[in-house]
Amino acid sequence: MAIGGIIGSHQRHSVVASRVAMFAHLLFLVTAVLMLVWLLRFRGGINIQSEDPDQIFNVHPFVMSWGFILLIGEAILVYTTVPMNHRAQKMVHMLVHMVAFILGVFGVYAAFKFHNAAVAPDLVSLHSWIGIGAISLFALQWLIGFAVFWMPGTHEHTRAAAAPLHVAGGLAVFLLAVCAAQTGLVQKGASATPGGTEANLINVTGVFILLYGATVAATVVLRMATRHV
Amino acid sequence: MAIGGIIGSHQRHSVVASRVAMFAHLLFLVTAVLMLVWLLRFRGGINIQSEDPDQIFNVHPFVMSWGFILLIGEAILVYTTVPMNHRAQKMVHMLVHMVAFILGVFGVYAAFKFHNAAVAPDLVSLHSWIGIGAISLFALQWLIGFAVFWMPGTHEHTRAAAAPLHVAGGLAVFLLAVCAAQTGLVQKGASATPGGTEANLINVTGVFILLYGATVAATVVLRMATRHV
Repeated sequence: MAIGGIIGSHQRHSVVASRVAMFAHLLFLVTAVLMLVWLLRFRGGINIQSEDPDQIFNVHPFVMSWGFILLIGEAILVYTTVPMNHRAQKMVHMLVHMVAFILGVFGVYAAFKFHNAAVAPDLVSLHSWIGIGAISLFALQWLIGFAVFWMPGTHEHTRAAAAPLHVAGGLAVFLLAVCAAQTGLVQKGASATPGGTEANLINVTGVFILLYGATVAATVVLRMATRHV
Repeated sequence: MAIGGIIGSHQRHSVVASRVAMFAHLLFLVTAVLMLVWLLRFRGGINIQSEDPDQIFNVHPFVMSWGFILLIGEAILVYTTVPMNHRAQKMVHMLVHMVAFILGVFGVYAAFKFHNAAVAPDLVSLHSWIGIGAISLFALQWLIGFAVFWMPGTHEHTRAAAAPLHVAGGLAVFLLAVCAAQTGLVQKGASATPGGTEANLINVTGVFILLYGATVAATVVLRMATRHV
């Protein structure tokens, strides 16, 4: 009876986790569209080869939202939402994170290229400090994760002991990237008319990125709750 | 032997949690001093009764950092660092949060009063949206916490079941407040010369608030790890 109750409760948690993850996918899509509308409709388009510094810059928020934050979230959600065996889930988790990192580095390159074209200094804003911190910690987390969970020499006990730290650390880095996005939107939003359409679009995009971060975090917490006991 | 190992491991976790909490207190002190130096040395002082809108505004970051974020963090750390019985810890936790909320409302008032004095619109920035979201969710979390953990009618089973949700929700609201602080610093930092002394001071203050948030979160995670078996 008691065990039946626990299993029932865990199945409920698991169902809730899947529904929250579905909601996260929806937020992913809305955020991606909002970001694209903002850059194309209000900021003059996205082009890394452009001679217009603004078009070069626009690659940065585009790649960072579609390629870095949203992919990291999807890679985190793989365990909850993709029905396949554990090894395949691990593989997708690791590879999607790798793609996210490569795109993140490209996004950083776009910001540097913009500074170069606009003759502006690099790495002076709090946003840039938080962003460089996030991508550096992400690289570290990926390397440690690869060494612990993919290198054949690691003992199962070590993997089991490292798993909660990997989950907590990964979630922390993801939330740091979400915070970097908020500061980036505020920084770029400073040039929009307060209360105007563009400013409100930027704010709504920021709120959706936050909600995406919160639902991904909630999914992880719920999934961990189903594993305990 | 196995049980001895588990207890030993939990004691180690507990010692680590206390050390991390001590580090958090240190970050608290440094952040509080940095914030004061910024507002007094670079922003012309703090005065809610002033006729200078900037002096009115400065009440906002001062109260929000010293009074809201840092007090919430300390109230969270009470369980790890204050050696007294559980009921006294609960009492301090609840009361310090209440003081933090009252100061947070005063900080919001200062921002509105500044907008009034400077003839600027209210609630148009992403920072203000995140901030209002954080303080509203904080009030909700406090009320639910009070109802569940202080009202005499609540059954012990309900309290035990609600505790992990209370911890996760409280940590999420705290991290949202930390994110609000980052966006606020970026917004106000836009007027400082990029790479100059004031801009760097703002960035360093932001990094310390982030580190404070991370260490408080780490303490909570470590404390929860000591409770599970």
